[in-house]
Amino acid sequence: MKQNIYDNNTFFSKYQEIRARENNYNNLLEQPNFFTLLPTLKNKTVLDIGCGVGDFAAYCISQGAKNVTGIDISSNMITKAKKHHIHQGLYFEQVAFEDMEVPNGTIDFISSSLAFHYIADFQLLIKNISTALCEGGILLFSLEHPIVTANKGKESWVTNEEGNLLHFAIDNYQNEGLRTQNWLVDNVIMYHRTLSTILNTLIENGLQIEKVIEPIPTEEALYSLPSLSKEFRRPTFLIIRAKKGYINS
Amino acid sequence: MKQNIYDNNTFFSKYQEIRARENNYNNLLEQPNFFTLLPTLKNKTVLDIGCGVGDFAAYCISQGAKNVTGIDISSNMITKAKKHHIHQGLYFEQVAFEDMEVPNGTIDFISSSLAFHYIADFQLLIKNISTALCEGGILLFSLEHPIVTANKGKESWVTNEEGNLLHFAIDNYQNEGLRTQNWLVDNVIMYHRTLSTILNTLIENGLQIEKVIEPIPTEEALYSLPSLSKEFRRPTFLIIRAKKGYINS
Repeated sequence: MKQNIYDNNTFFSKYQEIRARENNYNNLLEQPNFFTLLPTLKNKTVLDIGCGVGDFAAYCISQGAKNVTGIDISSNMITKAKKHHIHQGLYFEQVAFEDMEVPNGTIDFISSSLAFHYIADFQLLIKNISTALCEGGILLFSLEHPIVTANKGKESWVTNEEGNLLHFAIDNYQNEGLRTQNWLVDNVIMYHRTLSTILNTLIENGLQIEKVIEPIPTEEALYSLPSLSKEFRRPTFLIIRAKKGYINS
Repeated sequence: MKQNIYDNNTFFSKYQEIRARENNYNNLLEQPNFFTLLPTLKNKTVLDIGCGVGDFAAYCISQGAKNVTGIDISSNMITKAKKHHIHQGLYFEQVAFEDMEVPNGTIDFISSSLAFHYIADFQLLIKNISTALCEGGILLFSLEHPIVTANKGKESWVTNEEGNLLHFAIDNYQNEGLRTQNWLVDNVIMYHRTLSTILNTLIENGLQIEKVIEPIPTEEALYSLPSLSKEFRRPTFLIIRAKKGYINS
């Protein structure tokens, strides 16, 4: 079953509160690194999976993309996206990627920020993405790092009696699949996959790895949000750029 | 400074004891997975970095490789290799890869089992490997997983009062470089690199990722060595196969 947690109104309003703050993990850590891996957008056809309120889709248009489609399973998100971003060539649709009809080989760039860990069938997701991309097309996505998702919902940071962080707990790494956590509301579900599953699934579907980032904060980000210093101890995010093509020699 | 721990005689005799047992991590976990990624060896020129006592180099000859060079920094290892494996086309040399003169683009296959985490300059290592490989040549290597090397020498498995394993401790992940551990003898040194450093260094040097394995034990291996069940909780090894070439589309 597809989870549509962003249409849970308690969750959505708490989520909006976090995103309204400038000093959050997305703005300070994930997004700046995600942006370093963007391909040229000029005249490109773009699909943004899990587009949220549509800011990134609108950014692609501002950079000269020919047409950009943002999809999201949440009607809360798509309603906001349609309201705030109106532009020729910019489309928003409330649909799960699994249910979307994507024409073969027509998309230049598929992006997805922190959405893939909500999708149950990773094999099918990547297969469909590869089909949708043109030859030479780019997939850029971020997700929670397998080091973090492995033991999600159970032990994470371990502290001593004084409350100091001792280390991060990893466990259940090879047990892929559903994880349940309490984040903003109870029982938010997500999916853990190992690093090798993530990379091999891309490669087996003709998507060659171009770059991998495990983000660390800049000095400015640390000043703005000191808790980001934990990122030196274990990574929260994994960002991957891959290209549809084959290895020639 | 290059470490030559295998020429420490206390270390070497303890190491030989472990390897003499059939039910060790190498035989049950690392080697079977390493072998699944071997390229065709028939008529190939092979270089094995950190060849130890030369068993793998001799195996390559048995599979039809044209010539195979095994190198190792340890004279203990090379002495044994030369004594036990004598064959036309099979060469052993006591030398660090950094000090070896490798002709450009002439090697079809470079292998290395559990040696790269001892080498200080990973960038230079991979640059030289890429230079040595012919177009389409294969690099296959295994090393200790970054999840394990990150906090090496400090906390690892955390147990409760009854001695049961609670979880594995990860820390210092983004702090790459020297680690000191007590394994067989005191102060064995190795180097931690993040997963993204390992992958990006390959890619930046024209080596495209073909497959990544984080090995889990078979049922037979678990029966032979029950402590391997820990491998489901966090991986000990990382095995990568890469191909010299460029991404075409």
